[in-house]
Amino acid sequence: MSSERKAILEAVPNPEPGRDYVVRSESPEFTCLCPRTGQPDFATITLTYIPDQLIVELKSLKLYLHSYRDEGTFHEAAANTILDDLVAVLAPRRMTVTADFHVRGGIHTVVEATHP
Amino acid sequence: MSSERKAILEAVPNPEPGRDYVVRSESPEFTCLCPRTGQPDFATITLTYIPDQLIVELKSLKLYLHSYRDEGTFHEAAANTILDDLVAVLAPRRMTVTADFHVRGGIHTVVEATHP
Amino acid sequence: MSSERKAILEAVPNPEPGRDYVVRSESPEFTCLCPRTGQPDFATITLTYIPDQLIVELKSLKLYLHSYRDEGTFHEAAANTILDDLVAVLAPRRMTVTADFHVRGGIHTVVEATHP
Amino acid sequence: MSSERKAILEAVPNPEPGRDYVVRSESPEFTCLCPRTGQPDFATITLTYIPDQLIVELKSLKLYLHSYRDEGTFHEAAANTILDDLVAVLAPRRMTVTADFHVRGGIHTVVEATHP
Amino acid sequence: MSSERKAILEAVPNPEPGRDYVVRSESPEFTCLCPRTGQPDFATITLTYIPDQLIVELKSLKLYLHSYRDEGTFHEAAANTILDDLVAVLAPRRMTVTADFHVRGGIHTVVEATHP
Amino acid sequence: MSSERKAILEAVPNPEPGRDYVVRSESPEFTCLCPRTGQPDFATITLTYIPDQLIVELKSLKLYLHSYRDEGTFHEAAANTILDDLVAVLAPRRMTVTADFHVRGGIHTVVEATHP
Amino acid sequence: MSSERKAILEAVPNPEPGRDYVVRSESPEFTCLCPRTGQPDFATITLTYIPDQLIVELKSLKLYLHSYRDEGTFHEAAANTILDDLVAVLAPRRMTVTADFHVRGGIHTVVEATHP
Amino acid sequence: MSSERKAILEAVPNPEPGRDYVVRSESPEFTCLCPRTGQPDFATITLTYIPDQLIVELKSLKLYLHSYRDEGTFHEAAANTILDDLVAVLAPRRMTVTADFHVRGGIHTVVEATHP
Amino acid sequence: MSSERKAILEAVPNPEPGRDYVVRSESPEFTCLCPRTGQPDFATITLTYIPDQLIVELKSLKLYLHSYRDEGTFHEAAANTILDDLVAVLAPRRMTVTADFHVRGGIHTVVEATHP
Amino acid sequence: MSSERKAILEAVPNPEPGRDYVVRSESPEFTCLCPRTGQPDFATITLTYIPDQLIVELKSLKLYLHSYRDEGTFHEAAANTILDDLVAVLAPRRMTVTADFHVRGGIHTVVEATHP
Repeated sequence: MSSERKAILEAVPNPEPGRDYVVRSESPEFTCLCPRTGQPDFATITLTYIPDQLIVELKSLKLYLHSYRDEGTFHEAAANTILDDLVAVLAPRRMTVTADFHVRGGIHTVVEATHP
Repeated sequence: MSSERKAILEAVPNPEPGRDYVVRSESPEFTCLCPRTGQPDFATITLTYIPDQLIVELKSLKLYLHSYRDEGTFHEAAANTILDDLVAVLAPRRMTVTADFHVRGGIHTVVEATHP
Repeated sequence: MSSERKAILEAVPNPEPGRDYVVRSESPEFTCLCPRTGQPDFATITLTYIPDQLIVELKSLKLYLHSYRDEGTFHEAAANTILDDLVAVLAPRRMTVTADFHVRGGIHTVVEATHP
Repeated sequence: MSSERKAILEAVPNPEPGRDYVVRSESPEFTCLCPRTGQPDFATITLTYIPDQLIVELKSLKLYLHSYRDEGTFHEAAANTILDDLVAVLAPRRMTVTADFHVRGGIHTVVEATHP
Repeated sequence: MSSERKAILEAVPNPEPGRDYVVRSESPEFTCLCPRTGQPDFATITLTYIPDQLIVELKSLKLYLHSYRDEGTFHEAAANTILDDLVAVLAPRRMTVTADFHVRGGIHTVVEATHP
Repeated sequence: MSSERKAILEAVPNPEPGRDYVVRSESPEFTCLCPRTGQPDFATITLTYIPDQLIVELKSLKLYLHSYRDEGTFHEAAANTILDDLVAVLAPRRMTVTADFHVRGGIHTVVEATHP
Repeated sequence: MSSERKAILEAVPNPEPGRDYVVRSESPEFTCLCPRTGQPDFATITLTYIPDQLIVELKSLKLYLHSYRDEGTFHEAAANTILDDLVAVLAPRRMTVTADFHVRGGIHTVVEATHP
Repeated sequence: MSSERKAILEAVPNPEPGRDYVVRSESPEFTCLCPRTGQPDFATITLTYIPDQLIVELKSLKLYLHSYRDEGTFHEAAANTILDDLVAVLAPRRMTVTADFHVRGGIHTVVEATHP
Repeated sequence: MSSERKAILEAVPNPEPGRDYVVRSESPEFTCLCPRTGQPDFATITLTYIPDQLIVELKSLKLYLHSYRDEGTFHEAAANTILDDLVAVLAPRRMTVTADFHVRGGIHTVVEATHP
Repeated sequence: MSSERKAILEAVPNPEPGRDYVVRSESPEFTCLCPRTGQPDFATITLTYIPDQLIVELKSLKLYLHSYRDEGTFHEAAANTILDDLVAVLAPRRMTVTADFHVRGGIHTVVEATHP
């Protein structure tokens, strides 16, 4: 379920492809809209990955996350789409995306998806 | 030991059934009655699951948890019944329910049940 | 705006009326209903007071707070009514009631009222 | 410097106008745009006030804060405008608005404005 | 090294014996005497177990822990005796007892024993 | 309401009576009995004082606090009696005693008394 | 003791000069050199001020703080010079600068200077 | 009650004597001996002062604090002597010394002395 | 690399040699000297072990740790020597010693050694 | 991708080469330059290793980390180069380097690399 917005993501060469190492990037600045009510949702997105030949350029990651600002998406779909887009662009050896949403209806929800 | 109140729970299709991913939902707004004294008990309920074809709709989860408000139940039974009801409705690949109760008699009790 | 439920509160003699001292009692086990939606609200209630001739008996305080369980009340009214009831029964030299409610609509609200 | 968006705010009668008491409402779900770069900014907004004849209705406060989502505003202007709008609608006895913004350029900025 | 005081413990039927689930009960209200000096010691006791046919009744657990109040016992013996008593009464599938004592002589000691 | 157990307290000369300075001593090892139920209560006791000619010897303070172990006393009485005993023995320029009790009935209570 | 580097600071008009309000900006990204050893020092710098006609532009504040990177300065001089430079450029109604340095020789030092 | 070891302290000129500003230095590396038992005691020492013409050189402060390593001193005397020595050498406009000792006999003690 | 000071350690019989259980003792009161500069170093020492026939007597452990007070030792050597001494005296089934030193030169160092 | 600056690192003999033990050293005092903007970046560097015949001398580690102060390097390259340099000098049995950078563009990034 990768999206067209993955075109925003920019990949740069991994400076150490000969080693399995881990990069974790965390942003508390993700907001989208609830598809039912149209009201804003907020989340912290964390991606953790072992790069292969490419790493994500951080400014493009910021712009990619901001691109959800006016889009309706459910919690479970958001985490899986972000993972699919990043996998499509970076082809990492392994990647996990976590989406930790603000409380809604007294319930705090976190979704975590891993590839492969 | 699933209960009739499981009818309150609403399931919606999993947007990514092809992947094993994890959803965790936590609510500090669970209250029931002590079957011995009739006095209120309070707990934080956390469910963590890998969905199969269905995910739980969050508003129905909130209403389901609220439905215990006037019911007497022991700590150990509460966690197991909530797990059984959610398993009956969602048929998840794996699910854990944790019930973390307020201090009673100077003792803080947590019950954690996992299916399968 | 004191309420009839103040009859639940029991007062006992202050063991040291000759001294101004402070008692603070805090309960995270307050729940009432939202008058608009009928859905449960949850709050931590804290009372801080300088007793005069009477102090509150703690078990009766617990029962008094539990008596809101099935009653609809707005955040601002709850704190003021609890204060008025306690003032009516205890006639303290000074008293503050704080009601710290769970997040609703992404907003966390605290109401604090003081007598006199 | 009050704004036209103050029309979104709804006021309801204060249930206890005879007493000076304090209401504090805090929302971590404020986002606007940087007027220079067009990029999103994020903040936690806290209002603390002593109501006079009116209190703010919480759902309208949520919608009011969300209305900044597509508007460019500087940190210092945001806090002052929110204060002016709330003062214009509620005429409180006293009110403070705090805007606590996410880190930008390694700098964490908080603006706090009080009326009168 | 189970003790006669295990008679204080009351067991009730496990409501879900068909499932392996975990109960954790924690009490910061354990006090005994140092066998060398006669001075009080204080500890937080935590039991974590998978019940078989029986679970411990919480009020009897409180009374059992209080029964050490006037008894001299070393740190290591306390944890093992509590475990042996609970195992004798409950016959759990698995149980761990942790005793976390206050600082004595600048040293903070924790003892953790597991059955089987 | 000073007690006979104040004889346990030992005072030693203040090494710097020419200066107003503050001593704060805090012990989480206070336990007494509830006069109604006979069950143990637990508290952290903090004394803060400006000594005049005398300071309290710490070992005697420990023994004094331990002497409540088998005595029934209400929360409000405990704080005031400890203060009265310490004032009777030390004649400090100013002293505050705080008693912070464990949760009972879901309520956490703190009592703070000051002389003069 | 203002410095020539104050030319880096850019001031912009205060959007609400009719009100006394507070701006606090905090940066953990200050580093300079120890004048004795030439080794790097690190600090968190916080400025808190009530603006008059001008507020500081945040990017210029970042560049100003970075300009100390290759300069030797003692802890006490750093805080006072930053304050003097900001006062010279902004002419605030009131301003405090705090410099919280990393541990050196087992000692953690904070310097706080206020104008006027 | 200043001591001969104050000769270890080195003072350097205050770079900004025209302004009242605050310096706080905190060291968790103070150890001395108990005069009764000969056993080591440990404390965190914090000095907070407004300098006049002199500030303390930090390395000499470290050596001064280390000089108590083999000396017997009571808690109350330690704080007052450190204050007296620093006042004798620095002649500050105002100074507070806090000594926060490790738990002994279950009691945590803090002494705070201020000049003038 | 065990040391002669292991003679300070006293062993007492394990009250439950038939069970593998864990004892953890932690002391923040370790100080030694830097072999290069002669200046004091400070550390928190934690030992975690499964006893065989013997457990360590806590007062002797305190005296053993204090015996390093005037001795020069490097970080890595301290942790290994303490482990070797304790293993020589207690012959535990398994033991880990952790030495967590205060910051030196802006670097915080922890050494952890395990036997066997 | 080891660098010439590894010549700054000094190795000393491991005092216990016969045992696999762990050393962890953490420094929050790493700063370099962004290769794109020339602006400073800041990170906490943690190395965790099992030494073989050599351990790193801490002062040389400090100087090595400081040597990046005027060098442009990307986040991912910094962690891998530090690891390669330390491996080249120390030949450890195992080593992990973690670089935890300050927030940039609202994103907090951590890189962790392990040898072998």
